[in-house]
Amino acid sequence: MNGNRFGRLFQVTTYGESHGEAMGVTVSGCPAGLELSEEDIQRELDRRKPGQSMITTSRGEPDEVVINSGLQDGYTTGTPIGMVIQNKDARSGKYEPYVTAPRPSHGDFTYSAKFGTRNWGGGGRSSARETVNWVAAGAIAGKILDQHGIQVKAHVNQIGDIEAPPVSFEEMLEHTEENEVRCAHPPTAEKMRERIDQYQQEGDSIGGSIYFEARGVPRGLGAPRFDSFPARLGQAMFSIPATTSVEYGLGKEAREWTGKDRNEDWEFDAEGDPIPEGNKHGGLQGGITTGQPIYGEATWHAPTSIPKQQKTVDWETGEEKEIQVVGRHDPVLPPRAVPVVEAMLSLTILDFMLLGGRINPDRLDGTAGEYDTEYHPSSPDNE
Amino acid sequence: MNGNRFGRLFQVTTYGESHGEAMGVTVSGCPAGLELSEEDIQRELDRRKPGQSMITTSRGEPDEVVINSGLQDGYTTGTPIGMVIQNKDARSGKYEPYVTAPRPSHGDFTYSAKFGTRNWGGGGRSSARETVNWVAAGAIAGKILDQHGIQVKAHVNQIGDIEAPPVSFEEMLEHTEENEVRCAHPPTAEKMRERIDQYQQEGDSIGGSIYFEARGVPRGLGAPRFDSFPARLGQAMFSIPATTSVEYGLGKEAREWTGKDRNEDWEFDAEGDPIPEGNKHGGLQGGITTGQPIYGEATWHAPTSIPKQQKTVDWETGEEKEIQVVGRHDPVLPPRAVPVVEAMLSLTILDFMLLGGRINPDRLDGTAGEYDTEYHPSSPDNE
Amino acid sequence: MNGNRFGRLFQVTTYGESHGEAMGVTVSGCPAGLELSEEDIQRELDRRKPGQSMITTSRGEPDEVVINSGLQDGYTTGTPIGMVIQNKDARSGKYEPYVTAPRPSHGDFTYSAKFGTRNWGGGGRSSARETVNWVAAGAIAGKILDQHGIQVKAHVNQIGDIEAPPVSFEEMLEHTEENEVRCAHPPTAEKMRERIDQYQQEGDSIGGSIYFEARGVPRGLGAPRFDSFPARLGQAMFSIPATTSVEYGLGKEAREWTGKDRNEDWEFDAEGDPIPEGNKHGGLQGGITTGQPIYGEATWHAPTSIPKQQKTVDWETGEEKEIQVVGRHDPVLPPRAVPVVEAMLSLTILDFMLLGGRINPDRLDGTAGEYDTEYHPSSPDNE
Amino acid sequence: MNGNRFGRLFQVTTYGESHGEAMGVTVSGCPAGLELSEEDIQRELDRRKPGQSMITTSRGEPDEVVINSGLQDGYTTGTPIGMVIQNKDARSGKYEPYVTAPRPSHGDFTYSAKFGTRNWGGGGRSSARETVNWVAAGAIAGKILDQHGIQVKAHVNQIGDIEAPPVSFEEMLEHTEENEVRCAHPPTAEKMRERIDQYQQEGDSIGGSIYFEARGVPRGLGAPRFDSFPARLGQAMFSIPATTSVEYGLGKEAREWTGKDRNEDWEFDAEGDPIPEGNKHGGLQGGITTGQPIYGEATWHAPTSIPKQQKTVDWETGEEKEIQVVGRHDPVLPPRAVPVVEAMLSLTILDFMLLGGRINPDRLDGTAGEYDTEYHPSSPDNE
Repeated sequence: MNGNRFGRLFQVTTYGESHGEAMGVTVSGCPAGLELSEEDIQRELDRRKPGQSMITTSRGEPDEVVINSGLQDGYTTGTPIGMVIQNKDARSGKYEPYVTAPRPSHGDFTYSAKFGTRNWGGGGRSSARETVNWVAAGAIAGKILDQHGIQVKAHVNQIGDIEAPPVSFEEMLEHTEENEVRCAHPPTAEKMRERIDQYQQEGDSIGGSIYFEARGVPRGLGAPRFDSFPARLGQAMFSIPATTSVEYGLGKEAREWTGKDRNEDWEFDAEGDPIPEGNKHGGLQGGITTGQPIYGEATWHAPTSIPKQQKTVDWETGEEKEIQVVGRHDPVLPPRAVPVVEAMLSLTILDFMLLGGRINPDRLDGTAGEYDTEYHPSSPDNE
Repeated sequence: MNGNRFGRLFQVTTYGESHGEAMGVTVSGCPAGLELSEEDIQRELDRRKPGQSMITTSRGEPDEVVINSGLQDGYTTGTPIGMVIQNKDARSGKYEPYVTAPRPSHGDFTYSAKFGTRNWGGGGRSSARETVNWVAAGAIAGKILDQHGIQVKAHVNQIGDIEAPPVSFEEMLEHTEENEVRCAHPPTAEKMRERIDQYQQEGDSIGGSIYFEARGVPRGLGAPRFDSFPARLGQAMFSIPATTSVEYGLGKEAREWTGKDRNEDWEFDAEGDPIPEGNKHGGLQGGITTGQPIYGEATWHAPTSIPKQQKTVDWETGEEKEIQVVGRHDPVLPPRAVPVVEAMLSLTILDFMLLGGRINPDRLDGTAGEYDTEYHPSSPDNE
Repeated sequence: MNGNRFGRLFQVTTYGESHGEAMGVTVSGCPAGLELSEEDIQRELDRRKPGQSMITTSRGEPDEVVINSGLQDGYTTGTPIGMVIQNKDARSGKYEPYVTAPRPSHGDFTYSAKFGTRNWGGGGRSSARETVNWVAAGAIAGKILDQHGIQVKAHVNQIGDIEAPPVSFEEMLEHTEENEVRCAHPPTAEKMRERIDQYQQEGDSIGGSIYFEARGVPRGLGAPRFDSFPARLGQAMFSIPATTSVEYGLGKEAREWTGKDRNEDWEFDAEGDPIPEGNKHGGLQGGITTGQPIYGEATWHAPTSIPKQQKTVDWETGEEKEIQVVGRHDPVLPPRAVPVVEAMLSLTILDFMLLGGRINPDRLDGTAGEYDTEYHPSSPDNE
Repeated sequence: MNGNRFGRLFQVTTYGESHGEAMGVTVSGCPAGLELSEEDIQRELDRRKPGQSMITTSRGEPDEVVINSGLQDGYTTGTPIGMVIQNKDARSGKYEPYVTAPRPSHGDFTYSAKFGTRNWGGGGRSSARETVNWVAAGAIAGKILDQHGIQVKAHVNQIGDIEAPPVSFEEMLEHTEENEVRCAHPPTAEKMRERIDQYQQEGDSIGGSIYFEARGVPRGLGAPRFDSFPARLGQAMFSIPATTSVEYGLGKEAREWTGKDRNEDWEFDAEGDPIPEGNKHGGLQGGITTGQPIYGEATWHAPTSIPKQQKTVDWETGEEKEIQVVGRHDPVLPPRAVPVVEAMLSLTILDFMLLGGRINPDRLDGTAGEYDTEYHPSSPDNE
């Protein structure tokens, strides 16, 4: 409704502006008994944080998370988990010229048009800084999925006109984090890096796309139609700032395939269960998971903050203005969006797992720490 | 949650299976004072109904809607509008062979995997027949939007490898309904029709895509991030059966554009308001509407019901089987999906209009009919 | 939001006016595999229906339910269940004088003040006729609860100044349906009946209250605070028209009890589980069920439709008017509200059961009928 | 769903345990342009905070709130407001004996039964400390209501057997905060204080009740049935820990009133609008506000933490135990619950005001501070 909540049973609620006091996220619906520490969250935040390489903004944010609630002796209790990440390197002054003269293609104007005002430092609430909250929540989701044999991975498969060849899931696991571009095909990563450098030197920016995949998701998840798996995945992906396309399976190309070529016969798998002979369907049939890997792709337009001279108008003075967006900005979005995509995919899957009753408390292997507060009923019938 | 509800303030709740007793949809949150009759709904249902041309299924459904509640003397009262559409030409018998032997690439297996059972006649709940409910609800939404100067239109822009050139909104309004393919570019429509005939004769089917556009949507709609306009549009479009990609603005191509080329300077419009110099942004910046036309595209894979010989397995008997999907089926989805896309786009926009407080009761120009039940308070302060 | 939806996972959506075409209710989230027929619903509707005795309205509604979807061979499929009950004995003409001259203490004025109009025949949407939908949905919930060993029962414990002594759950089961007043204490029922007759003869009406109880509800249900069991029970009970108080456990009297007297020591039950030594807590501690019976009470004010001469004003003409509410009305609400209270209590409990993962598909003992569409995966790990 | 969210458009999300790191609350849906500072929140928190008098717990919590987001130059921006209140005086050690031996009539057992574990220090999540979040959110709601001419007030009207006579709204405003008991009838307050002292000296505690009232609420709010005003008020009040009854208008007494005596004729008010001749209906008819004052009452049972010797069982050791609940506790709940009741009533009303489109941005009289970021469209048609 108000844009700061995601998830039906695994509920994520966020707040924060780029240059505000702090970012915050509340996770409720997390099963009890999960071992969880700030380190589990920090590991993922570090993948997303600014200043990690030459192709990211130089803003110096340690992005240190503090967990305020929801734990007992290092294990989740089933009650809400509140997390806060202080903003430490905000320099709002540079944004004064844009207060009433919107930066081209940013959210400055639309936020003011919607609310009649806005927090303007560093883009305020419209900044991608908000995604730090999602990665924090996604880290919890990812840990639970991992204990259920579900793996989620993404990598950058195109930057500008540089396109990576298809890679295996294993290659994604192995190579994605090896380079700053987060492309799992090292030779392509090299070319991408060069292309990014070129645009950065020209004071320009460039678009790109990310391929994502999830393995081990059980069959039967998704509630067609309005809560089908693709519908909720679409909402999740289009929530990420600057996303302009989302697809799964054959995606946009599907329009050129015939039914005969795309249809997949049913076979029996090793256990004697029906399984499609291929996975052109991307793990989804009728809006519900088939048990095959779910895969897809999403596109990000070029960052709109560029140091080129551009034109704008000041709605206060009625004057036209030259504008040059200073600040510390990324020349391309996908490399830092990879952990965000993984977070949103994890949150989407976990939510469906909970709705489907597929989370097994025993796999969380939690104890209640020093004091065993756990209550084991003797009379199962009552449970 | 359960997949049969769409919308936050304009709430649509549906039920029904392809060969069940009836389809039903409840609309709540519709403003009071809208003149509404079954004819308003019927007009749109007729655009979606089966048997309307040679390239649609021959199933003979009149799709006659009955309004059970929510009106007084022909005007809405603000309370829930219940509608029912009886199913009249169901022939479930033909589906018996598929009960435990899933049709290739259909939802048969995933529904059974999710629920442990399913309504199997005609695809049951997984059938696109469900969209009759959406078109009924969308007809109400469309009427309200129309009274607020908002126009929504879609047309088929590609079938297989046959691609239509870009057309204007006016061409869409004029030509879309002129041909069975619902392509607003008549010469291309002709070619599409031929290509469809060719696949149909081969016992095959083919994919395609739809371009959609909305004009007159006011600036300031959308609640970033999880309820941004693109996020809710993505959910809406991916709810439609067989959708495999959704994009807006430059869409997937945005990955090859630089920031400099994609960014749009701000100018003043005739009234002195800031306006972007172009609309490569597709009417959306920062997840919020700019007031420019919203446009995008979505893809549908080829219908999976084809009379070709295919293979499946029977999970009851453990046998492999030959399967030939008989029944009455569409050789291509987009022509009949056009009114569905328009319905989902209308529902999405109206919901945001209501959330943004932009619906003006005075534009609904309703009276309360023969008896003026309208209450006009004399003391506006209390209102 | 719009008042026609109840439940989080077991979702009930309703429509209909007293004198409209039909009443309708959509139930989604019902587990698959429940044997269900129109007779299961009808049995409960007959307990609520008008004209069942001398102390209810004489309106002649058969209240016959039709199930439009959600079943296969007599078993639920997990997809939405749509039900319709036609209105057959509506006589709106009698309500013409009240269109712009609101009946005293009815919802006529507030509905018109809210919406600017209203469906005015028979009270329209404000009529208690709406509860026929709830009883239909509650019949499904009750059947599932029954299969899980949960029993829900209510009876009328006070009418005017005639108060019944406390009765046991067994007495409620045995005696409630024996008399028209639905009081489980037969001698008191007799007195209540006389008192009601007296008011009815005087052209007056009278208030009353209902005691309700649920047995077999497992411990651990409820999500404090805003979704605590009492919070959702409070919402459910106050949804019923004309309810003015709701309480559980010691209720309002609790204000006169000391902590020492109200507190209950913990003991071990037969299975060795902790159990409170008594049940002054009404089955709820910290907003969560203890496993002890949940009990409480709610009050209904006197029906506002009485044939006495009263005064009103006409907002159209500006005149004061004498008014005598003709029509067919109940002289007291609780006797017919008993099945409604049971329905709302059942819906509340079942929703918490689903949220707590306590519904056991095996207890639903469904098969898939003639054709066993059930899919039993061979590879449980994937499930 | 998970118990930590309240409100449909004005959304409150909370976290925190009694002895956890911090309490936190996120408010989204707050209109832009409201002048807001930490002092506005602090003023209300100070009314609820522990240690404020001899009849409250001696726990020393300053309850200092920090606002982390949602403001620009001291005015709200329409985006989420994140607030944190650190816990400073937690002494969990004292709770060790109760980890597996639940305190009588507390939430210790039910939380462990629900989650299999719990945060046990100071009652953890089950502690009334959570209500500090509600009072923080309610302070924002109250400020907006105040600017719309709506006043909300509560006072303690009964403690044990000491009952206050009815008082006027003006007396509530004048006297409630004058005494520690928060009873607006000073002579009764004195007696209540003595009675509380007596129980406190005996190592016992006592129940009580609160009368609440709201003035200036416009007619037409509430969405019958499941979102009627009483239904949502019931949910709100029963969310408060230890509430055992809620009523409005004549409440429980309504069962002894006849229709003739309770019904209220309609008259014209000074402006010529229909108005009921009295307010026995408590400001609500048909579940919708009439414009008359809304009033009601709720009951709290005695605090369960008492230093008396009691009995419990240890589910770990299987032993019976003597237990004496040490810690710092209130001998009676209503005095500190008064600001909590006002907060929940304010949140409920504001939510309905927003749903009804009744919040007037102009009354918020905000400017955008030093920099006027406000955007005033020149073309109203587009707005």
